[in-house]
Amino acid sequence: MRPRTSILFFVLFGLTTALSAQNKIVVFQSDFGLKDGAVSAMKGVAMSVSSDLKLYDLTHEIPAYNIWEAAYRLEQTVPYWPAGTVFVSVVDPGVGTDRKSVVVKTKTGHFIVTPDNGTLTLIASSLGIAERREINESVNRRNGSQKSYTFHGRDVYAFTAAKLASGTISYEQVGDLLANDVVKIPYQKAVKEGNILKGNISILDIQYGNVWTNIPSELVQEIGLKFGQNLSVRIYRKGIKVWEGLAPYSETFGAVARGKALSYLNSLMQLSFALNMDSFAKLYHIGSGNEWSVTVQVAEKK
Amino acid sequence: MRPRTSILFFVLFGLTTALSAQNKIVVFQSDFGLKDGAVSAMKGVAMSVSSDLKLYDLTHEIPAYNIWEAAYRLEQTVPYWPAGTVFVSVVDPGVGTDRKSVVVKTKTGHFIVTPDNGTLTLIASSLGIAERREINESVNRRNGSQKSYTFHGRDVYAFTAAKLASGTISYEQVGDLLANDVVKIPYQKAVKEGNILKGNISILDIQYGNVWTNIPSELVQEIGLKFGQNLSVRIYRKGIKVWEGLAPYSETFGAVARGKALSYLNSLMQLSFALNMDSFAKLYHIGSGNEWSVTVQVAEKK
Amino acid sequence: MRPRTSILFFVLFGLTTALSAQNKIVVFQSDFGLKDGAVSAMKGVAMSVSSDLKLYDLTHEIPAYNIWEAAYRLEQTVPYWPAGTVFVSVVDPGVGTDRKSVVVKTKTGHFIVTPDNGTLTLIASSLGIAERREINESVNRRNGSQKSYTFHGRDVYAFTAAKLASGTISYEQVGDLLANDVVKIPYQKAVKEGNILKGNISILDIQYGNVWTNIPSELVQEIGLKFGQNLSVRIYRKGIKVWEGLAPYSETFGAVARGKALSYLNSLMQLSFALNMDSFAKLYHIGSGNEWSVTVQVAEKK
Repeated sequence: MRPRTSILFFVLFGLTTALSAQNKIVVFQSDFGLKDGAVSAMKGVAMSVSSDLKLYDLTHEIPAYNIWEAAYRLEQTVPYWPAGTVFVSVVDPGVGTDRKSVVVKTKTGHFIVTPDNGTLTLIASSLGIAERREINESVNRRNGSQKSYTFHGRDVYAFTAAKLASGTISYEQVGDLLANDVVKIPYQKAVKEGNILKGNISILDIQYGNVWTNIPSELVQEIGLKFGQNLSVRIYRKGIKVWEGLAPYSETFGAVARGKALSYLNSLMQLSFALNMDSFAKLYHIGSGNEWSVTVQVAEKK
Repeated sequence: MRPRTSILFFVLFGLTTALSAQNKIVVFQSDFGLKDGAVSAMKGVAMSVSSDLKLYDLTHEIPAYNIWEAAYRLEQTVPYWPAGTVFVSVVDPGVGTDRKSVVVKTKTGHFIVTPDNGTLTLIASSLGIAERREINESVNRRNGSQKSYTFHGRDVYAFTAAKLASGTISYEQVGDLLANDVVKIPYQKAVKEGNILKGNISILDIQYGNVWTNIPSELVQEIGLKFGQNLSVRIYRKGIKVWEGLAPYSETFGAVARGKALSYLNSLMQLSFALNMDSFAKLYHIGSGNEWSVTVQVAEKK
Repeated sequence: MRPRTSILFFVLFGLTTALSAQNKIVVFQSDFGLKDGAVSAMKGVAMSVSSDLKLYDLTHEIPAYNIWEAAYRLEQTVPYWPAGTVFVSVVDPGVGTDRKSVVVKTKTGHFIVTPDNGTLTLIASSLGIAERREINESVNRRNGSQKSYTFHGRDVYAFTAAKLASGTISYEQVGDLLANDVVKIPYQKAVKEGNILKGNISILDIQYGNVWTNIPSELVQEIGLKFGQNLSVRIYRKGIKVWEGLAPYSETFGAVARGKALSYLNSLMQLSFALNMDSFAKLYHIGSGNEWSVTVQVAEKK
């Protein structure tokens, strides 16, 4: 190793260590809803570990068992929290199966405590995973919880997150290091193939029924799409075509007649589809998640 | 008093004092929902008492005036918070009547501020009540709130909880000691009578429509129920039979045909009823609470 | 200036300064709902400014784009939080237009960070505005947020609120002082004209469908209304009559027959209308907000 490389190594190492120093903040996400006591029980366990912690929520309204949406919400919000924040994400259809309970450290110095079931799919691409450790449940588990039924969100995930966030344990004490490849849900990445763009329907803008893809504005520019031009759109579920039509690329929804389809860039600068004054998703039965994909191309003039 | 008894007394007394030292945490529960400003006003009053407090929520989605469910959610979560935590529970159909406003200390060192209207029914059985005091509203009431309409949740309960949690007042300063018998809602406790188990429908697992009783696995074992055996179930509201049928005792929902009833142990290890791929509660119009009871016994072979 | 006046001036000045010292509390309101990550991203940005802040919520269930309701919820809750608390209210149908982004200081020493689009209408009347400053977005904007699409709630409002609440900037450093006249939504103030009271429908008590006006009990007394007397009520939307009828002034809902209208004083001591055991708002299609007004007078005996 040459001297300059080793200096760089230590600078980066120090930076990473500083970035990932825990900051006593824990942020919770789940599909539990807020009508019962499950979220409160998790927070109670965290407060029992250390009442110095600051506990916040991402959302608890993830649709039941929807790992994709859990992955999407993490990607949408984790970067805005300070490095060192510990996230707990519990959307866990596989409880009782052999999915691993892990804590990952991202390359940005955030920690995520979760069943490794695909929840980390999008964060792994955008922020990158620095390390993955399997929770050693023989030590990182609420006292007394061995006796009966285990509620993993409360007894293992919230408990481990609180110990980590409060500095009661180091990241290394979470458990053994695993290979650095989190479980990923396959989905259509945004790509350009010839004149065609392919992508995934990441999420619905539920309140308005708009359909958001993962195709960034840069790719839209590459096919030369201009405002006013027709975009030819095909939407697929599990590879089977669900909708096909024209959606003029528009700056405002009013650029098309009431009830007509249009395409536009949403607030994340990604290609999206809408109906003027109506719900695209509801009218055409469009959903979101890894099963949903789209292809688009500039429509030929007749 | 013999020496050993008095030593034990002081050890226990010291332990209780330590357990119940307030810890600056206040946890709120109500039937107010989160659409208006009522919950925020309560928290604002608490922060005005001391901005060192840490304010959390149990739930604010208790169905309107449903004291039973308030009682159930407290029992479900209080034990997971550290001793010394102060809970505020405001489900108060009797505001304006002569129900007492109290603060109880449980035998586990938790405090609960609430109208004494049945909300403490289940906690009294599971954790036990160490002391009950009536809030002296002449001193424990938000300044200026005497002038007009009183919102008790904000002006008395949140205010008193904040003063107690912050150590501004001691538990004794809440008000006079009352007899140690909180108001209890009558309900069918889980019992074995001959070959029959009786119990209460504590709660519905709303998302799936499953019916949860208070009958523990220990009692289920005592009648010798084995997986695969038929359980004969009768469900009553106010003593009138609402449903009767067979529910095979199952390890998995798929053990019965689609739409068929089964019995199983839920995550709290209590006897529960479900339909495979359908909602037992919705199909058979089953509710939960003190009015609902069940009897079960192993079905005789034909 | 006479000596006594100048002493008074300095006493008041000192008081105002003390009142408005920031207290590290930030309270968020929006129409974002809690199903996605928008609220969490705002809180993450605030925590990135200072993890000493205490972040709470007013509500995030304001109906989409309903500025009136945002104004009402602020008026309902701000006074209960300690002086120095910083509120962030993001209900912003005019994003992208020329509405100003401001921070006001109320005469009670509370700060409100918001688009100045009418959200401050009611607070301006009840608490009074001491100062209004326009956010200088060239300095008070999240680092890196200039590059792409700006989410104002997160990148400007939450960021500026966190800097102010934490004392990282003074109120003066928010930006330039503006004239002290916030944007106000016109609405019918509560007045007595001869024997008639006029007022606005401030809000619906949604859960029960009751209709709440801004007419205070004092005005009701001035027209000499007594329990049991008939009140003649007219309800208008944009000046067009929507409902007209008699609503006996009642102490209890049961004072009228099931399904019949009544008038009463609500918990804020303001004149309200209800149906006994039914929803007045739903049955007669009544809404709330600045477009809705009422006139009432004691009905003449036949």
